[in-house]
Amino acid sequence: MYLTRRAEFSAAHTLFNPELSRDENERLFGKCGNPQGHGHNYVLEVTVKGTIDTKTGFFINAETLKVIIDREIVDLVDHKNINLEIDYFREHVATCENMAKWIWGRLQNKIEGCTLHRVKLFETANNCVEYFGDENEGPR
Amino acid sequence: MYLTRRAEFSAAHTLFNPELSRDENERLFGKCGNPQGHGHNYVLEVTVKGTIDTKTGFFINAETLKVIIDREIVDLVDHKNINLEIDYFREHVATCENMAKWIWGRLQNKIEGCTLHRVKLFETANNCVEYFGDENEGPR
Amino acid sequence: MYLTRRAEFSAAHTLFNPELSRDENERLFGKCGNPQGHGHNYVLEVTVKGTIDTKTGFFINAETLKVIIDREIVDLVDHKNINLEIDYFREHVATCENMAKWIWGRLQNKIEGCTLHRVKLFETANNCVEYFGDENEGPR
Amino acid sequence: MYLTRRAEFSAAHTLFNPELSRDENERLFGKCGNPQGHGHNYVLEVTVKGTIDTKTGFFINAETLKVIIDREIVDLVDHKNINLEIDYFREHVATCENMAKWIWGRLQNKIEGCTLHRVKLFETANNCVEYFGDENEGPR
Amino acid sequence: MYLTRRAEFSAAHTLFNPELSRDENERLFGKCGNPQGHGHNYVLEVTVKGTIDTKTGFFINAETLKVIIDREIVDLVDHKNINLEIDYFREHVATCENMAKWIWGRLQNKIEGCTLHRVKLFETANNCVEYFGDENEGPR
Amino acid sequence: MYLTRRAEFSAAHTLFNPELSRDENERLFGKCGNPQGHGHNYVLEVTVKGTIDTKTGFFINAETLKVIIDREIVDLVDHKNINLEIDYFREHVATCENMAKWIWGRLQNKIEGCTLHRVKLFETANNCVEYFGDENEGPR
Repeated sequence: MYLTRRAEFSAAHTLFNPELSRDENERLFGKCGNPQGHGHNYVLEVTVKGTIDTKTGFFINAETLKVIIDREIVDLVDHKNINLEIDYFREHVATCENMAKWIWGRLQNKIEGCTLHRVKLFETANNCVEYFGDENEGPR
Repeated sequence: MYLTRRAEFSAAHTLFNPELSRDENERLFGKCGNPQGHGHNYVLEVTVKGTIDTKTGFFINAETLKVIIDREIVDLVDHKNINLEIDYFREHVATCENMAKWIWGRLQNKIEGCTLHRVKLFETANNCVEYFGDENEGPR
Repeated sequence: MYLTRRAEFSAAHTLFNPELSRDENERLFGKCGNPQGHGHNYVLEVTVKGTIDTKTGFFINAETLKVIIDREIVDLVDHKNINLEIDYFREHVATCENMAKWIWGRLQNKIEGCTLHRVKLFETANNCVEYFGDENEGPR
Repeated sequence: MYLTRRAEFSAAHTLFNPELSRDENERLFGKCGNPQGHGHNYVLEVTVKGTIDTKTGFFINAETLKVIIDREIVDLVDHKNINLEIDYFREHVATCENMAKWIWGRLQNKIEGCTLHRVKLFETANNCVEYFGDENEGPR
Repeated sequence: MYLTRRAEFSAAHTLFNPELSRDENERLFGKCGNPQGHGHNYVLEVTVKGTIDTKTGFFINAETLKVIIDREIVDLVDHKNINLEIDYFREHVATCENMAKWIWGRLQNKIEGCTLHRVKLFETANNCVEYFGDENEGPR
Repeated sequence: MYLTRRAEFSAAHTLFNPELSRDENERLFGKCGNPQGHGHNYVLEVTVKGTIDTKTGFFINAETLKVIIDREIVDLVDHKNINLEIDYFREHVATCENMAKWIWGRLQNKIEGCTLHRVKLFETANNCVEYFGDENEGPR
């Protein structure tokens, strides 16, 4: 049984790798690499996996999961500039892919009674990424 | 090849385990355990798996699947009080998780020519569960 | 200039007029009149009208409007049974239309610095009502 | 007859009035005034009003309207920092309300054969503003 | 008080005026004028205006309105080719604008106890038209 | 890590197998087999699988994937009649299932640096199919 909880946050970011030249950045990231930054309403879906407890009819209270997601993720990035205000993104390009990995890393050990299964992050309605932990495992 | 059919129904429910004290219920279920009940527009997605028949170009007519879902599920729960009007939920807490299991159980042997793969049930736009049958199998 | 703020709540209701016979109720309300109740995820949109203040760039802070909507409406109806827990609906049929009027009545004098313009209430994705205050005026 | 065309753009902004103290800004704008900026996927709906031409069955080609919206608005703000890259917002707080006025001003004289009726701008799914031109007129 | 009911239908159409040359058609309609036709999932919203009846709490049953919309509109156009199967569109270009007028004409005298206020028709998520009856009146 | 890119196209189609009698077609396809055709706004989601490149923070630029999807799929089917204008559907019934296979076939060798994982195609909001390549493999 899988439970998914959805959250939203609004943040600014830009795609820029300081180890590369300005030309190389522009070639790789196009308008997404505008150094002044741009922004998104991100949609985050966190999926956990567990077995139903007969007493409660669930394995984790969706409200409990919401509290964890808010505390570990939303409160840190909502109405923030990701490049400037999250340390991880000083050393990693602030792509949706790297954000999904960062979210996985922060949530992985915070959820009790069930297992983190998937982090899905929408940058826009047209683009999203999914991460299932170890990339070599290929869970799906 | 997987086909998914979406349906909606509006129902009242409450989360309450009669074997537990009122305090214990309140601690476990919070505002979701209000004994007067509350309600949702549930969204149900049923996914079946099969192999395309060259003659028809599909393995089950989406309209046939719709008829089964309406007859087995929607007609029983739409504009109903799930706790009071579905026997199964006299003995099982009416969580989204248990509803997904009940839906799986009702659909499993009703679909011909293909296999039930997944039941996905949204309680709100922010919460959904997915069930793939035997929980120990872990299909995804 | 008009500002619209959106909110959601989950509630149970039924359509039933105690002054009418059971047959008359069934004829008028069909499955919506099931006495056990059913429920919805309601979506509420509140629109206010005002003139931009040069200093702030708005006429009411959207967050202030949110706080008023939550306190006056959402906290009273979310995860509640509207028929049993809101006094107004002991004497008024709990239709979407009457709920919009009740919402208008509660919000009308609570909003400062601008004017309540419209209350829009979705019962499902397929049905909604709009109320602009005095029905005889024909505001739109 | 009214035609509405929808567009999207992703941009960073912050709410900050340089003529006010930092404390005053924080009191007025809360987390929206984070000086590092944050961002949104804005949704813009432009409505024009006209009379159907019998020959074409429309009064403006929706594609023509799209081209105007892209050239006059989307190309200027998409993947941009509104505060830093649009001159108008050096002197006006970059609220959704002021953005709607700026959009109205840019579109008003660019549309031929019909009249600009409304600019509707969503900052998130929960917040939007509507502008109909002269605020004193109160068209709706 | 306004009530809106939403419906959907899937239909093929093309934009073509037989009184014009092929070049003129192509210039006017671009890819929308492909003579082989293309198609859409149209979304139709019908808004009616009335005064609440104290006995029922509404002025028209949303289900009654649904039945009228299905009988007068959806049953005629769903899974049809609008140009070939609706007589009106042999003499009128099958634009969204003309379809809204045709829908208005068919519904206008079929609704009892309230007044047809608006027909809103979405061709895609990005394009919609609204019609309020007599275009000269300027109802909104 | 999985990246999904969403696209839309509007097309006409009908379900008809020329090797079967008209009665047999009608029995199999119902209103979807109307020989005049009907249409949809299709939504296509293409998912690719890869490993993040440290330099760029992604494994394929979402814009690159968009260009491939537009060139290989959208440009061929948008505002087209699928049955009449795509050769493949002269010999295959134009179901959503066969369309997903055709899309898979066209994309499979066009994507560099990562692997095509899934093609998901929505015919309407209520019906979609998913294809993962070889049907016997059953990846999910």
